[in-house]
Amino acid sequence: MGKQESIQREFLYGRHAVHEALRAGRRRVYRLLISEGAEPRPILEELSALAAVRGIPILYVPRARLDAIANGHQGVVAEADPYPYADFEQAWAESVRRPDPPFWLALDCLQDPQNFGTLLRAAEAVGVHAVLFPEHRSARVTPAVVNASAGAVEHLWIVQVTNLARALERLKERGVWVVGLQQDPRAVRYDQADLSGPIALVVGNEETGIRPLVRRTCDFLIYLPMRGQVTSLNAATAGAIALYEIARRRGFGHA
Amino acid sequence: MGKQESIQREFLYGRHAVHEALRAGRRRVYRLLISEGAEPRPILEELSALAAVRGIPILYVPRARLDAIANGHQGVVAEADPYPYADFEQAWAESVRRPDPPFWLALDCLQDPQNFGTLLRAAEAVGVHAVLFPEHRSARVTPAVVNASAGAVEHLWIVQVTNLARALERLKERGVWVVGLQQDPRAVRYDQADLSGPIALVVGNEETGIRPLVRRTCDFLIYLPMRGQVTSLNAATAGAIALYEIARRRGFGHA
Repeated sequence: MGKQESIQREFLYGRHAVHEALRAGRRRVYRLLISEGAEPRPILEELSALAAVRGIPILYVPRARLDAIANGHQGVVAEADPYPYADFEQAWAESVRRPDPPFWLALDCLQDPQNFGTLLRAAEAVGVHAVLFPEHRSARVTPAVVNASAGAVEHLWIVQVTNLARALERLKERGVWVVGLQQDPRAVRYDQADLSGPIALVVGNEETGIRPLVRRTCDFLIYLPMRGQVTSLNAATAGAIALYEIARRRGFGHA
Repeated sequence: MGKQESIQREFLYGRHAVHEALRAGRRRVYRLLISEGAEPRPILEELSALAAVRGIPILYVPRARLDAIANGHQGVVAEADPYPYADFEQAWAESVRRPDPPFWLALDCLQDPQNFGTLLRAAEAVGVHAVLFPEHRSARVTPAVVNASAGAVEHLWIVQVTNLARALERLKERGVWVVGLQQDPRAVRYDQADLSGPIALVVGNEETGIRPLVRRTCDFLIYLPMRGQVTSLNAATAGAIALYEIARRRGFGHA
């Protein structure tokens, strides 16, 4: 990432997205824009209080100004630094410090920001340690993704990698089982697979699934049974079901 | 529904949505509109073949014509009768005919068409027998929902009810356990609850959950454990995880 890009600011939008960005405090927020006509609600008051504590200026602007920035802003926009991606080794060090075995998620070229954000929200909820995704041909953590994740990405360790297969190989060398979620004749039913120990779940593209090279990197594949006429699930839904199954086998840790 | 409304036609869009509407054949399709510039793909050929078999005229139109109808049409639109909702008793008769105990889903005022469609897609995949939702304050099965469900709704029995609590009472009188998915101090962890026998899962609104009256109608509540900072899931994701848990306990029937 060049200097040019690293100094570009973003407009986060939506009450949950802005709230979690402020709460996590991992990226600098320059100013908060609140719609002049916004209904006074507890979450808006909390946002204002958080901004005050951090010395972030609040501007009350006409709603049309926010409409021009994003749909679904719910009366709140924050001007902030770009999303703070983590480094692979930094994420690994954090992961081994946790009380439960490493629990990673790898997204192989998800395209839709809504899917990307929704799955990251589930990953955060279930206690995933870190998320990997490739630099190219994939959605990135844009403000739309932050919004779709209800701000959950602000609390996650997310690593952009040049080569996803190679990054997964590095995890395998460290004793992590790499499990692909993929309809495939060789796949094991998800509830009958051995999902114990350190694990990285791989979820593929909405239409084409996991790419062949990444698929070959997986130690094994799992699938979700389907009984209906339509034999596929939304990628984010399928990923979340698999994540919850892994967490269920672990007894949900401290939850 | 008055006569006026029942004769209004809809424009279904998206390859999967149109494909499943044709395959299910439950509503009349008047004509198929295909974009002149659409990439020739197997699914388009299959659509044309299905239309030919059913004597449905195909019109090749400029892409701009489809763009004016809907975003995300993928080069295919079908002019069709409105969604064919089922009657409660008809759905019940179908449900008891199935080899597994009744398995219903009730959606209490979901608002977002994307969530509504995604959850219905999961419901169809997992073998839910019928879906209930209230006439008022809820998303309905619009073309956007058909699209978000990848056409799965065309194969589902979906019942619009005037009073959801009363419809759930009718199910209870017939021996169905009504289970609400709801974060609540009285709720049981979803993987520790008794989910055997005839069951109706209730999923609530994105922001406010299940309405109090409907909540009181539930025999018991279940919750999904969360370990993260953001303590809620997308409603469609949460619903799909609970549906898969119910199906898993049933051994996935014939899957």
